[in-house]
Amino acid sequence: MDIWGELLGYIAGICTAVVFLPQSIQTVKTKNVQGLSLLTYVIYNIGMLSWILYGVYLHSIQMIIFNSISFVFASIILYMIIQDRKKHSM
Amino acid sequence: MDIWGELLGYIAGICTAVVFLPQSIQTVKTKNVQGLSLLTYVIYNIGMLSWILYGVYLHSIQMIIFNSISFVFASIILYMIIQDRKKHSM
Repeated sequence: MDIWGELLGYIAGICTAVVFLPQSIQTVKTKNVQGLSLLTYVIYNIGMLSWILYGVYLHSIQMIIFNSISFVFASIILYMIIQDRKKHSM
Repeated sequence: MDIWGELLGYIAGICTAVVFLPQSIQTVKTKNVQGLSLLTYVIYNIGMLSWILYGVYLHSIQMIIFNSISFVFASIILYMIIQDRKKHSM
């Protein structure tokens, strides 16, 4: 079960990355954060950070790798949303 | 670390649920699947199923519970998309 169990983690991580990364990359490229919810990204970032730390606790390299990739993109988008809000509130 | 480690899993699972469930519940309620991508939901479902089985492998009740909730909603939406495609192809 060991190899298959570990493989499941990679399949899960790659599927999650394939689903969420294209939109994230596009948002980072176009810098268009109109219509994105600040609260959603705050909660999403807390979730991703928790999955990474939980992955450390479970010694799961798959959870650490794939959630870290998501966390980096989500953090960039969160930062862009905050900068955009600041610009519009001035 | 045990209690804090387990707690991290619950925080992560709840954050993920809070971010994705409202949209899922709304889609299931309104039955409006226009603009939803079939391929995206196929990949998302494979990902969720893999996370659940990987959670079984890691003995993580948090991964099993929260990914199962996501999987149920994503499966219903996937079924609705397929039914909608069938209707429009007749």
